[in-house]
Amino acid sequence: MRKINHWHTEDIRFPTSKELDGSDAMNPDPDYSAAYISFGHHGETLSAGHASVFTIGRGNDVQVAALEALKPFVVGRDLDELLADMGALYKELTGDSQLRWLGPEKGVMHMAIGAVINALWDIKAREESMPLWELLASFSPEELCNLIDFRYLSSALTPEEALDIFVRAEDGRPERIAALRAEGYPAYTTSPGWLGYDDEKLERLCKEAQADGFSRIKLKVGGNLQDDIRRMGIARAACGDGYPIAIDANQRWEISEAIEWIKALAPFGIDWIEEPTSPDDVAGHREIARGVEPVRVSTGEHMANRVVARQLLESQAVGLLQIDSARVAGVNENIAILALAAKFGVPVFPHAGGVGLCEAVQHVAFFDYVALTGMKEDRAIEYVQHLHDHYVDPVVVKDGRYWPSDVPGNSQEILEVTRQDYAYPDGIIWGS
Amino acid sequence: MRKINHWHTEDIRFPTSKELDGSDAMNPDPDYSAAYISFGHHGETLSAGHASVFTIGRGNDVQVAALEALKPFVVGRDLDELLADMGALYKELTGDSQLRWLGPEKGVMHMAIGAVINALWDIKAREESMPLWELLASFSPEELCNLIDFRYLSSALTPEEALDIFVRAEDGRPERIAALRAEGYPAYTTSPGWLGYDDEKLERLCKEAQADGFSRIKLKVGGNLQDDIRRMGIARAACGDGYPIAIDANQRWEISEAIEWIKALAPFGIDWIEEPTSPDDVAGHREIARGVEPVRVSTGEHMANRVVARQLLESQAVGLLQIDSARVAGVNENIAILALAAKFGVPVFPHAGGVGLCEAVQHVAFFDYVALTGMKEDRAIEYVQHLHDHYVDPVVVKDGRYWPSDVPGNSQEILEVTRQDYAYPDGIIWGS
Repeated sequence: MRKINHWHTEDIRFPTSKELDGSDAMNPDPDYSAAYISFGHHGETLSAGHASVFTIGRGNDVQVAALEALKPFVVGRDLDELLADMGALYKELTGDSQLRWLGPEKGVMHMAIGAVINALWDIKAREESMPLWELLASFSPEELCNLIDFRYLSSALTPEEALDIFVRAEDGRPERIAALRAEGYPAYTTSPGWLGYDDEKLERLCKEAQADGFSRIKLKVGGNLQDDIRRMGIARAACGDGYPIAIDANQRWEISEAIEWIKALAPFGIDWIEEPTSPDDVAGHREIARGVEPVRVSTGEHMANRVVARQLLESQAVGLLQIDSARVAGVNENIAILALAAKFGVPVFPHAGGVGLCEAVQHVAFFDYVALTGMKEDRAIEYVQHLHDHYVDPVVVKDGRYWPSDVPGNSQEILEVTRQDYAYPDGIIWGS
Repeated sequence: MRKINHWHTEDIRFPTSKELDGSDAMNPDPDYSAAYISFGHHGETLSAGHASVFTIGRGNDVQVAALEALKPFVVGRDLDELLADMGALYKELTGDSQLRWLGPEKGVMHMAIGAVINALWDIKAREESMPLWELLASFSPEELCNLIDFRYLSSALTPEEALDIFVRAEDGRPERIAALRAEGYPAYTTSPGWLGYDDEKLERLCKEAQADGFSRIKLKVGGNLQDDIRRMGIARAACGDGYPIAIDANQRWEISEAIEWIKALAPFGIDWIEEPTSPDDVAGHREIARGVEPVRVSTGEHMANRVVARQLLESQAVGLLQIDSARVAGVNENIAILALAAKFGVPVFPHAGGVGLCEAVQHVAFFDYVALTGMKEDRAIEYVQHLHDHYVDPVVVKDGRYWPSDVPGNSQEILEVTRQDYAYPDGIIWGS
């Protein structure tokens, strides 16, 4: 028996607000941060997994406290027992009655559970000597089903239906793995479109993104309509007709305001409008979707859990869905949401950017292609060229595509030197 | 200028799991807890307010960490400036972009904001020498409107509509204050119906509740259908026909399961079914409501925020609404939700029990009667006779009714000796 006897949490923050990278209508000055967890068994060697919750600064300490609250559920446990049933710890943590009160299944506590589950997946993948995406794609349909908590989903997705979806995608897995390695997976970039950038920088970065081979770009909107009209005009002129441009309002609008604003920008050609209003407002997204057809409405990076995902999909409130690897309770809940999206035929464009999100979501998207939907058309992973050099296994994006790594694990490990230097508040970056 | 220079947070836990008080289908062994905050100005004397977030044990430390994350927003500020605009700090805290990432407006961070806002209201009420309910009922319609954050509400409730609701309730305030003092406010009790109690205790407590004058009782259900049928039979026989009995499943069911289960219990007469499924599932509540008519469906104690409340009301998913004073961001968001419920003609039965919830929600309900809906028919505040003696100004419930206190403040202050003895993990109750 290998007891879990190694547990370490860290508050890591990057002073990104100084550069206005990542500025949008709702988040003017984020300091990209990671509430970081590593745990495992320390015997003759250390077998540990890594993961983190992405936050944007203040409150990263609260997120670390939530990770620490999970320590009694993990330390002292038999690692091999946990690795033998990768659905068990997830269901135990999200189901714990006392912790559940703090959500349920949402916010700080749910995100902390996600990071712990993701770190457990990292151990599993390292021990199986596979990148996480490939490990997931090696699971049988029955094993995949067993990862999902079907509570509150059965009206839309039963275990039998999910099994059927996984079974249908079993054929052709090796071919798709080969195709993924040969062709990569489409990426899109948000780098040109931050609100804090001036027009000249916007135009230059739009052209660069297109030249670099990205399948689409995304612009932040929602600050001021006249500015948005001008910026969309610049982006459209720079990219030419037909090139997909998505826009992202970061929850800025009321329902009727959203419809009006989107209609004003629609003539420029919009691939999707992202987060038009509150991420809790399923009814609002549905109303906006009806009001701006054929523009696709999307949300997801702040979607609390699979119950909200189910309602968004069921009511056709979204034309695409953006999942976040850290917002929900980790890989397991991501798979549940991917299966729901597949059931409703809605493409998933994972949310990334931030710090560590690109590294994390690529595994989920590659898995979706290989063993779930079998599709990578009209799909793309968000990409921002930012903070990747702090990772042991950084994403590889070239020719506008993500290229799968063969490094075992989930790519979430941050370099030791970064973890020291950017430690908050005592690292040299933050120290006086 | 009075700077806020006093700030104190505490982790207080009561070992209630030993007695199975508070046991239900989802929460078998809660340790009722308070993440406690007091802050204010310490000059020649101390002017401080008190409030807390109710949790059920594990994670109360995370909740305290979330309170501490708000310290930089409060300490050092001008107290009088904050007291002069009671909507300002609430909007500032829920709108802070970095903290918002941890919700948004849900879970641990949102509850912490609620406690800080409630403590500020406590200072205000103490300084005005009024109990909180009376202070709120002394505000003009315009002042009440200014307490509300209308973001994400405008499709259902505009500032003009809210103002109109408050204006209509302006007449007769003094008469209703007099009536409240003369007649009290209806209460109902959950004390008989905890799942951990045996049949004999259930029957005895049902009879006692009715004899004590409570307007209705509530039974926990959802563990086992045959047990529930037997227990409903015992309760109905004990209470007689026509006496209102509500049931509470604490989120236990899938949608179709809920409809089936409720239909099996409906012949006994059900006043409402509470929390049939996930509190995030607006669509599910609507479907259940359609499926079990005329039984009323209710939820609210785990309702994340006003955006979910708006959708529940707008879609007629609930026949009544149960708000919680600590789950949402405090008094301000409670007033928003009360105004929404008034707009849709849905009665509010505040969630209580726990520790400190009865003390807190009574103020909101009294305010609703005096200055919002003007009604106390088909309304009642939950009551559990439990842990009140730890409070400086405990609720007064007799003849099955809540009786308004005249003590200035929000009734949330816990006795100094309790705060010492029940401090976790070092108080004598928890110490070795």
